[in-house]
Amino acid sequence: MNDAAFRRRYETIRVRIEQRLKRTRPARGAARLREGCRYALQGGGKRVRPALLVLACEAVGGRAAASLDAAAAIEIMHNFTLVHDDIMDNADARRGRPTVHRAWSANDALLVGDVLVGASYESLLRTKGPAQSALAGVLTRGLLDVCEGQALDLEFEKRSDVTVREYFRMIGKKTGALLATAAELGALLGGGTPARVAALRRFGLRLGIAFQVQDDLLDVVGDPAGFGKTIGGDILEGKRTYLLLTAAARAAGSDRDLIARVMAREGSPGLFKSTGGAVTPAGRSFVEDVRRAYGECGAIDDARGVVRRTTRGALRELDRLPRSTAREMLRWLADELVHRAT
Amino acid sequence: MNDAAFRRRYETIRVRIEQRLKRTRPARGAARLREGCRYALQGGGKRVRPALLVLACEAVGGRAAASLDAAAAIEIMHNFTLVHDDIMDNADARRGRPTVHRAWSANDALLVGDVLVGASYESLLRTKGPAQSALAGVLTRGLLDVCEGQALDLEFEKRSDVTVREYFRMIGKKTGALLATAAELGALLGGGTPARVAALRRFGLRLGIAFQVQDDLLDVVGDPAGFGKTIGGDILEGKRTYLLLTAAARAAGSDRDLIARVMAREGSPGLFKSTGGAVTPAGRSFVEDVRRAYGECGAIDDARGVVRRTTRGALRELDRLPRSTAREMLRWLADELVHRAT
Repeated sequence: MNDAAFRRRYETIRVRIEQRLKRTRPARGAARLREGCRYALQGGGKRVRPALLVLACEAVGGRAAASLDAAAAIEIMHNFTLVHDDIMDNADARRGRPTVHRAWSANDALLVGDVLVGASYESLLRTKGPAQSALAGVLTRGLLDVCEGQALDLEFEKRSDVTVREYFRMIGKKTGALLATAAELGALLGGGTPARVAALRRFGLRLGIAFQVQDDLLDVVGDPAGFGKTIGGDILEGKRTYLLLTAAARAAGSDRDLIARVMAREGSPGLFKSTGGAVTPAGRSFVEDVRRAYGECGAIDDARGVVRRTTRGALRELDRLPRSTAREMLRWLADELVHRAT
Repeated sequence: MNDAAFRRRYETIRVRIEQRLKRTRPARGAARLREGCRYALQGGGKRVRPALLVLACEAVGGRAAASLDAAAAIEIMHNFTLVHDDIMDNADARRGRPTVHRAWSANDALLVGDVLVGASYESLLRTKGPAQSALAGVLTRGLLDVCEGQALDLEFEKRSDVTVREYFRMIGKKTGALLATAAELGALLGGGTPARVAALRRFGLRLGIAFQVQDDLLDVVGDPAGFGKTIGGDILEGKRTYLLLTAAARAAGSDRDLIARVMAREGSPGLFKSTGGAVTPAGRSFVEDVRRAYGECGAIDDARGVVRRTTRGALRELDRLPRSTAREMLRWLADELVHRAT
């Protein structure tokens, strides 16, 4: 299959997932809550996790149709994390729309998130077959891991001694957990052997880690037009990224002080305009300095190396699966996710 | 068995539930989150829901030991609702201790609640047997119902045209859902017939409704020493209770205006001291007026009637079960819960 054929097939899967999500009607009896849930679920996005679930199912010989309720479940669980994370991060916008707690209120968003967790299990348990309780166990592990990852992320924001090793543990949970869960659920549903289920789980986890380091990298070296976020936003917020933590361990001389300022968020006051988050000229010049420091200490090259090696490690897991179109689709999906312009 | 024997047996069950809860260690990898979860779960309380689950299991012929993981699950789910409700209600204290969001922060409490949901499923799925996925389905329905009940409660706070009928729908979910879930889970685990499972579910639901109306009543006619809350607190907060909604539908003349002031919370400003929630003399006199109005329009007598009839309806469900010590314990438990000093 060529790129256009992959893209068409992905679109077919995505449309079926959207249809299944539309059928999800949690909180029937409480209008406001129901509206909030609908808003959260209809925000678009690439639907990567459910697509991964469907493809993992097919890659071990299962049928896509049998995996759609589980696919909806993982996307609903993902959206729960977005709604609650946005409250915690006090975020104004998501995918170009106001966040749920801005469009409604923090209390509404709190309850919308809670209901989405219930709706996720409800959708999963609609899946036919004897493995239901194993599936529920996997989803539960994903839920617990993703919460732990978010807790570590919040904790790290307050510490300036976070190590790169701790960072990997955090993103493995915060970003990796639901991708790993998606792949594992799909593989279980498709009737995969334990070895193939484990391989697909590792594929999802590694893909998640590669994707997060790539995301960190794009904040610094990405193309502003293609990235869709403010370039240097992570730097101005003092976010604990792979680049910052690597540079903190390595930068020397005056760059050492510069990195310490990022870590302490001393670059921030006045660098952002007070509204809208647009960067001031002083902010742009600060980002430029930090970017140079990241480059000179080798953090940028290192990050590229991590993305490359982790992606390769993810793809190697696919060698344990039989040849199939679904396996080729998984390779293509990994490529789509990780090889954005860097 | 006499009252002392029931009490001893209840205490034995409660201690076993406490032990099972202590073994729950969610969020192993994130210290702060782990501490918050422990704090939430170790707050004491009567552990009514898990005790109901254990007794429902025994009442259909099951063994208590087999139901303890599910019992812990329902208590963990209940504590999730407390932690998140306290954020939404901006509550300072719970069971004589600072709430999780006061002792830590709102973000911590948000995550603690989320993790508790995961920990609840984790505990439930530890239960052995083929019914696991049916159990997960029942727990999920409980989770969705309790969120819907909370959403309705928040919605009602903003409306002054709430009907008594709507009130019953709300408390059936907010207070009834987890008691119904507890009884149903226990009955399923004990291998009860569908008719007995349904009877025990209705027992839990009705008990929850009776308990809530009783709680509304105690705010107005309770003994301040025994009740453990500020008498008249619901009145000063304009909480939509059975009494307020009944009086709103019925009060005439100047009492009509008085009830409208409660509904509009016009009684509130200055009636509470700004800190600590102690009631001012003006507040006490306002509560006294409203209490008289509730009495004169018959709302207090009506509430007593609802508690009596709903409790009787709950107890009648138990007639569908075979004679057993567990069934006698369930009667005793209902009596303990509902016949507090009114």
